[in-house]
Amino acid sequence: MTSLEPFLRPRSVAVVGASTRTPLNVGGRAAAVLRKHSEIDVFVVSTSAPPGGADGAYPSLSALPAPPDLVVVAVPAPAAVAVVEEAAAVGARAALVFSAGFAEVGDDGAAAQARLSEIARETGLLISGPNTIGYLNAHDGIHATFFLQPDEPAPQPGPVALVSQSGGFAAYIDELARDAGVDLGWLVATGNEVDLTVTDVLAYLVERPEVTVLAGFSEAIRKPDQFVDVAVRAAELGKPFVFLKAGGSEAGQGAAMSHTASIAGSDQAFDAVCTQYGVQRADSLEQMLDWLKVLQTGRSLSGDRVALLTGSGGSGVLMADAAEEAGLVVAPTPAADRGRIEALIPSFGSAANPIDVTAQAVASGVGSYGEVLSTLLASDGFDAVAIGSGLRGASALHIADAVAAAYTASDKPLTLAFYSTNEQARRILVGGGVPTYADSARSLGALGALRRHRDRPPVTAPSPAPVDAGRAARGRELLASAAGRRTLTEFDSALLLELYGLPVSRQRLAASADQAAEVAAELRFPVAVKVVSMELPHKSDVGGVVLGVQDATGVADAGRQILEAVAANAPTAAVEGLLVQEMAPHGIELLCGLHRDPLFGAMVTVGIGGVLTEIHADVALRRCPVSEADALGAIRSLSGGRLTTSSRGLGVDQLAPLGAVLTGLSALAAELPEVAEIDLNPVIVSAAGPRIADALVVLSPAP
Amino acid sequence: MTSLEPFLRPRSVAVVGASTRTPLNVGGRAAAVLRKHSEIDVFVVSTSAPPGGADGAYPSLSALPAPPDLVVVAVPAPAAVAVVEEAAAVGARAALVFSAGFAEVGDDGAAAQARLSEIARETGLLISGPNTIGYLNAHDGIHATFFLQPDEPAPQPGPVALVSQSGGFAAYIDELARDAGVDLGWLVATGNEVDLTVTDVLAYLVERPEVTVLAGFSEAIRKPDQFVDVAVRAAELGKPFVFLKAGGSEAGQGAAMSHTASIAGSDQAFDAVCTQYGVQRADSLEQMLDWLKVLQTGRSLSGDRVALLTGSGGSGVLMADAAEEAGLVVAPTPAADRGRIEALIPSFGSAANPIDVTAQAVASGVGSYGEVLSTLLASDGFDAVAIGSGLRGASALHIADAVAAAYTASDKPLTLAFYSTNEQARRILVGGGVPTYADSARSLGALGALRRHRDRPPVTAPSPAPVDAGRAARGRELLASAAGRRTLTEFDSALLLELYGLPVSRQRLAASADQAAEVAAELRFPVAVKVVSMELPHKSDVGGVVLGVQDATGVADAGRQILEAVAANAPTAAVEGLLVQEMAPHGIELLCGLHRDPLFGAMVTVGIGGVLTEIHADVALRRCPVSEADALGAIRSLSGGRLTTSSRGLGVDQLAPLGAVLTGLSALAAELPEVAEIDLNPVIVSAAGPRIADALVVLSPAP
Repeated sequence: MTSLEPFLRPRSVAVVGASTRTPLNVGGRAAAVLRKHSEIDVFVVSTSAPPGGADGAYPSLSALPAPPDLVVVAVPAPAAVAVVEEAAAVGARAALVFSAGFAEVGDDGAAAQARLSEIARETGLLISGPNTIGYLNAHDGIHATFFLQPDEPAPQPGPVALVSQSGGFAAYIDELARDAGVDLGWLVATGNEVDLTVTDVLAYLVERPEVTVLAGFSEAIRKPDQFVDVAVRAAELGKPFVFLKAGGSEAGQGAAMSHTASIAGSDQAFDAVCTQYGVQRADSLEQMLDWLKVLQTGRSLSGDRVALLTGSGGSGVLMADAAEEAGLVVAPTPAADRGRIEALIPSFGSAANPIDVTAQAVASGVGSYGEVLSTLLASDGFDAVAIGSGLRGASALHIADAVAAAYTASDKPLTLAFYSTNEQARRILVGGGVPTYADSARSLGALGALRRHRDRPPVTAPSPAPVDAGRAARGRELLASAAGRRTLTEFDSALLLELYGLPVSRQRLAASADQAAEVAAELRFPVAVKVVSMELPHKSDVGGVVLGVQDATGVADAGRQILEAVAANAPTAAVEGLLVQEMAPHGIELLCGLHRDPLFGAMVTVGIGGVLTEIHADVALRRCPVSEADALGAIRSLSGGRLTTSSRGLGVDQLAPLGAVLTGLSALAAELPEVAEIDLNPVIVSAAGPRIADALVVLSPAP
Repeated sequence: MTSLEPFLRPRSVAVVGASTRTPLNVGGRAAAVLRKHSEIDVFVVSTSAPPGGADGAYPSLSALPAPPDLVVVAVPAPAAVAVVEEAAAVGARAALVFSAGFAEVGDDGAAAQARLSEIARETGLLISGPNTIGYLNAHDGIHATFFLQPDEPAPQPGPVALVSQSGGFAAYIDELARDAGVDLGWLVATGNEVDLTVTDVLAYLVERPEVTVLAGFSEAIRKPDQFVDVAVRAAELGKPFVFLKAGGSEAGQGAAMSHTASIAGSDQAFDAVCTQYGVQRADSLEQMLDWLKVLQTGRSLSGDRVALLTGSGGSGVLMADAAEEAGLVVAPTPAADRGRIEALIPSFGSAANPIDVTAQAVASGVGSYGEVLSTLLASDGFDAVAIGSGLRGASALHIADAVAAAYTASDKPLTLAFYSTNEQARRILVGGGVPTYADSARSLGALGALRRHRDRPPVTAPSPAPVDAGRAARGRELLASAAGRRTLTEFDSALLLELYGLPVSRQRLAASADQAAEVAAELRFPVAVKVVSMELPHKSDVGGVVLGVQDATGVADAGRQILEAVAANAPTAAVEGLLVQEMAPHGIELLCGLHRDPLFGAMVTVGIGGVLTEIHADVALRRCPVSEADALGAIRSLSGGRLTTSSRGLGVDQLAPLGAVLTGLSALAAELPEVAEIDLNPVIVSAAGPRIADALVVLSPAP
């Protein structure tokens, strides 16, 4: 990986376009902020500068005493390309282009943007932007941005690194994060991403020791492999990685594509990659900040038992609902702690969990509130504490102090739902590091993020199976039988799948109904009889399938019936014969599949199959290469987990053979890139294992 | 319905326990607030008052010049019962009991609480509480509560009426609602609900002309019929009704039952009742307030096309995601409006939807921002507008003013996601009535609430079918055949279901395997053969079922096989014979059922059936009596709507006969209360209509 040090931790910066006449223009502001908070060399380049570097400004980059690490480009778009060319020419290492007006404004802008790409490729200059607001690096005090005002205080170093493609949104995030108490040590925007992308920056930041939580926002993932690499590194280093991806809906995807002009993968594929590689995907900015607030504390959840502390019985019940929703357990208060708490609260309160100290105790009993909280934080019976509090009245500030103090004295996770508009009390809590929320559904949801981080899957780097060249060659011969068509016959599909160890039902080909009856004798009844035609991928729709045939006579009858139906329903289709196939024993009907996402590449699918596939719409995807653990994870996630936990569901012995179907598809995808899509539906899973009862292999269109 | 006028709109109030020595105790505060904001007669009763009503206070209720409409009881719990008795004795019409320390503290308190119930029943005195904080009635300026301070300004009249069982939570709600700009004209807490419940109060408020939006919060519904009545009235009057019910989870339900000591219905049943009767159920307080904010505007959504106005492309994409999630359509900007907007924004912005005016335009172009917004609000191409805005910089307040002005000048729904901590700008927006949110997922979600209100089901009052006494009598004869057992045989179950027009497969009883083969001749093959035994409700688990038998010989074989299997697996079970039953044609396997919820009573169920029922866990419930519309609504809701919209799903012709199964179960539930439960699984729906392939009828335990 190219180190991004010259871009994000430069020793010298030149700001081009920092007018000496209007010092608070975009460039002037950036230069002032860089000088104010860091000790690095900051040069100002301005065409309005007198020659010779007087007035503290230089007329051009080549006039500088030495090439700077980073050139900040704050000139209008039409002039920006020349500045970047000059930066490369003088030997600068990185360029940060604020200027807007590139690909987002049409053809001329797109051409200029393409030229920037070219410069990066040809010269090795790191280019960030254009159309970006730059970054804040609070650890080194280097803020290369125009959205901080020179008179604003320096952002404080914190454990969270957040990278946002959108510059405008990064500014929103910064403001809201600071208000919410999310401690951003790094905030980087990447804009139009002509060279450096969100994942390039994350790949650098994940290695930084001061960064313990990683977060990203993007409308598009341009480097899917790098996204996976970052996720793997974050998992290896135990750093939570939260991502907010916009464009999850059709409407959003349309908006994102027109806004970023990038390839869109399916949202389902992105979701699957997040699950597979332990990335927590947030649904909204608010949710992302909610999670970061508790993840940044570094506190870990050793078990799922949560104590709910409230001053209102009603709020306690809502909190219990939210706790269960977040996968937590509202465990009973241990007897000893219960006794201690009962002595501290009014008789009409409750020391059972939820612990209701009553509004009266909140209003008057400052000391006892803190004591109750400390008791819960110290209790062996709880792994976390969640508070719901209105903090009204005179004692509000004292209670906020008490909560902040008890929180600091403990290392147990705690979140607080603050049902109040007392801004002073909220400031005390947030300032004390207490993860504070406006609603208990959100405060408990945040503890859920801590639980998911603890229970993340064992993430390992994708490791493709070694390619079996002989097998690939044999597979390619079968593909050739398509003879220019996009689909294989079911018979050839079965032969191809068998090469990869996939359990296809035993079958025979026949040229006529009578021959079908003959070959059926080699199989075990009942059998299915199906038409063979490359032109009929959906055989049942034209009467091309008869199931459950019990004997040879039945096979001959079924064969005739099929040939008549197909002749009537699809008179132009070339029929190559009949397929006779053993019926799988009764079992659970699933589907397995393979397709190629435009962005993430080969993905395998497993789901509830059979005729009701579309109705259930219950599928899980995993990106290839798919490990056995990935495959089992996908299977276990189906039907909310019930497919493998229900008494009517899959048994433990049935999981590994089904997983092997998915890993087999993954191997096939790697060895035969010309296969575009495979649909196996149904895959019938019985005590005898999975059995593929119908298969369709689709080839990529010829180039 | 008893009018609650004396309680909620009294002409005179006596506050008992308003100490003349400590005027700011609970009672003193209530009296001061009542006097400050209303013109009604407010009497203070205090044992510490000098005799004869000097000092403005009276020593007892009987010393008052006339009986007050309402007595506010603000004395400690042990003294409260006597005060309420006295209130009834002097002829007061209502009592509001603030005192805590009743059922929530144990046996003594429960006895006192039971006595309050008794007084209400015996004397007709309306009693609210105990353990409540009272109410705010902003329309009449009558605030019978101790949680307002006498020096606080009077709450302003607004269109929302909110009733909360929990007093503590009501105080939170009040504070957060006012801050969020939810205009509560009524806020009533009901506490321990010894007499008046949340639904009693809602039933009164739904009729009030100044109330246009109804909201409730409760841990328990004590009067389920009244809840339905309120929902029906709200629907008839076109008033949105939002409810937040705590105790939706197992943990929450446990907490609610111990806190309110009330019967718990299942959360699924409550959810179904909300759906059936057009109540919007919120998941959290925050969500309830989010919805109220936009519902209170009275603006209606005439279509689903929403314009998304933002200053950041990234935020536009997130908004598009949220719009689609809320069921809205991100329609293209009409050409004429597009031209107008393009003239107002920088070239790197976008006039397509999402409309990105760019951060630059937000920062500098106040005038144009307002014009863009007005253009969208006036456009024929949009039914609503959603704004995402950071409002940074010097122009923030001007833009807030412009938004508020454009909003007021239009009657189109608009919501705003405010990505900023500029409290002054937020105040301008909220003060201008603009529904303002902290996140776009929430602002678009709120427009979704408007859409659901528009698309609510056609709610009508529950109308039970007339009881058919003859049919009930015949049904009862069949039930008698259970002879003390809890289940009917499948044969008797089928006869019972046929009485109610339910489509059971044709069937015959046989005493032996050979006789089974004989009676099978009267049926159409294939058939199922099943053991008949009242002791074996789950026949397949003991080998008591063979399906798909093709001929008479097969029936005899199957019969023998079943009898052997049952003898081996359940040797003590009394076997009454064999049942031979026509197999239903292939089709979609559903389940239908009936059970009795402890709170809501008889409920019918429809869902995805067959062996994978538990895995799919896809069912819909409706409360009895179930109308045809209710039944169809339940069927249409299955599998996210796909059961009836997918090409593999149910056809239009199949819906009414399936609906009739549900209405038939509803009629049975009404006529035969001794039936506790019915499970029909699978109900196979083919082109021939629904066919019940297996039925289990369970009776209530003998009293």
